[in-house]
Amino acid sequence: MRWRVAVGSSSFAAENDSPLRRLGDAGADIVPNVLGRRLTEDEIIGHLEGVDGLLAGLEPLNRHVLESAPKLKAIARVGIGMDNVDLEAAEELGIRVSNTPDEPAAAVAEMTLAALLSLARGIVVANSDLHAGRWNKGIGRSIAELCVLIVGYGRIGAEVAALLKRFGAKILVADPFVEDSRRIPDYAWVQLDEGLRVVDAVTLHANATGVLLSKDQFSLMKDGALVLNSARGHLIDEDALIDALGTGKIRGAWLDVFWEEPYHGRLLAHDNVLLTPHISTYTRGCRRTMECAAVENLLRDLDKAREGSREGRIAGRGDQ
Amino acid sequence: MRWRVAVGSSSFAAENDSPLRRLGDAGADIVPNVLGRRLTEDEIIGHLEGVDGLLAGLEPLNRHVLESAPKLKAIARVGIGMDNVDLEAAEELGIRVSNTPDEPAAAVAEMTLAALLSLARGIVVANSDLHAGRWNKGIGRSIAELCVLIVGYGRIGAEVAALLKRFGAKILVADPFVEDSRRIPDYAWVQLDEGLRVVDAVTLHANATGVLLSKDQFSLMKDGALVLNSARGHLIDEDALIDALGTGKIRGAWLDVFWEEPYHGRLLAHDNVLLTPHISTYTRGCRRTMECAAVENLLRDLDKAREGSREGRIAGRGDQ
Repeated sequence: MRWRVAVGSSSFAAENDSPLRRLGDAGADIVPNVLGRRLTEDEIIGHLEGVDGLLAGLEPLNRHVLESAPKLKAIARVGIGMDNVDLEAAEELGIRVSNTPDEPAAAVAEMTLAALLSLARGIVVANSDLHAGRWNKGIGRSIAELCVLIVGYGRIGAEVAALLKRFGAKILVADPFVEDSRRIPDYAWVQLDEGLRVVDAVTLHANATGVLLSKDQFSLMKDGALVLNSARGHLIDEDALIDALGTGKIRGAWLDVFWEEPYHGRLLAHDNVLLTPHISTYTRGCRRTMECAAVENLLRDLDKAREGSREGRIAGRGDQ
Repeated sequence: MRWRVAVGSSSFAAENDSPLRRLGDAGADIVPNVLGRRLTEDEIIGHLEGVDGLLAGLEPLNRHVLESAPKLKAIARVGIGMDNVDLEAAEELGIRVSNTPDEPAAAVAEMTLAALLSLARGIVVANSDLHAGRWNKGIGRSIAELCVLIVGYGRIGAEVAALLKRFGAKILVADPFVEDSRRIPDYAWVQLDEGLRVVDAVTLHANATGVLLSKDQFSLMKDGALVLNSARGHLIDEDALIDALGTGKIRGAWLDVFWEEPYHGRLLAHDNVLLTPHISTYTRGCRRTMECAAVENLLRDLDKAREGSREGRIAGRGDQ
């Protein structure tokens, strides 16, 4: 039998068709995302009709959507974050869910370096000033002159720490959950508030569910500090950030993730904030690697589902 | 006797007063640049009245200016470029001229990396799009996915090549004047036109006096190539660059140097051009190191001028 596989991710195989060829070789029929953007709840329900497996982007995969797709056996996220998937509902319905946590670290670390350089060297403000006809030569700082707090020491946080360290930055790390064996002596291991007091820049790479940086945290920081977030929009209190930018407490910020995406909020008016549309993993190489990994995850989980159904070992949906 | 030393550079000791303290300790009287901007010809003539030594920025130091400063014995450029100094006139008048070529390489290389990342990862366009309310997720390239042509293999070109190589870029170098012993096998050594045909990005670090990139050179390049210039504005034909940006032949550019500075030209209207106001050396550390080096150069040359005058060995101006 042939699997029917839907693509949710809007940019899937946009630059390289090797993941699609792999699916074809494995005998799958492909249902592409023809809208080229993130699907709404109604759209993804229609998109999943008769579908066995989904290569998921950030479309809403809540309980209602999953219950509306009786044939669905596997979801493979092309990416790291799983906030858009109701994992509990998926488990109850016997839908296997995977993601690609290993692939993006280098691409996200490079993007974080790019953003930190842009802010620390004064490039963001200088560029917007000069485009507006203002020639303002400010003196910036090299990465080697910075003390940086990494919040969250998962794969990405560790990669960012190592990269900035190679450029001579002093690195502090805050992560209450990291094992002792990974607390290497190259970095100072601190509590979040303790670190915020002394650094020139803080960069978020945590998968926390709550707010990490709000009014109280910004007030601890040095005047003119920098804030970077490529992890999750909700980790920062937007109003508190806007206030801190207004007073100069925070001199510049980079946001690649937002409270709502696409983002159309108040930060658009701030020239000292570097804004990118959730593209930290968007390099040709990283996308191809993530897409290929997601395809392998999906095919593996579809095979398992078939075996599970045949052998009756998995209480969920097999071939329906 | 005390030396009278004028400061031309508008940002001298802006972030750190150690170069001024060194001058004071050496018994110099300091004439600051109180305007905080580049001086005009008339202004620098007034500024040099009764002055023995100048810590020079980019103010015009032409024959007329130098002839109007009969006591001037030494000029120390805080920086590399000497295009603003009439070296022939200075030599005839017995004025010693120095610059600080060694200090800026790391800062300029870091800035070039920042700019290349900003262009290759699509950050420049994404940021201006998002500030205008457009959420466009484009797929960029990592440095490791790029083939880059370095034009000019002096101190800065060599530093840029080594840095990008560490990020995995394929490096080509064009420099007709580099000695064989420095042509290390890590890079492909090519003619300019030969290199332009195959690379994704070209970055200029040459001290040529003519135009290096004009219509003919852009036409050789791959569609969507990137152009970076932190060397000298005149190396690129502005009209040809604007045409190439218009057709998409050149997808993005970074300019830190301009045909005229401050720059108010037609490129201000192009969102895919990253513009910075000649700040590649503007880090705290680099400025301090350059300023201290310029002060040492100036004190050395003033001492030599005194000896020269006393011993009658130098046909020029000693103590007048």
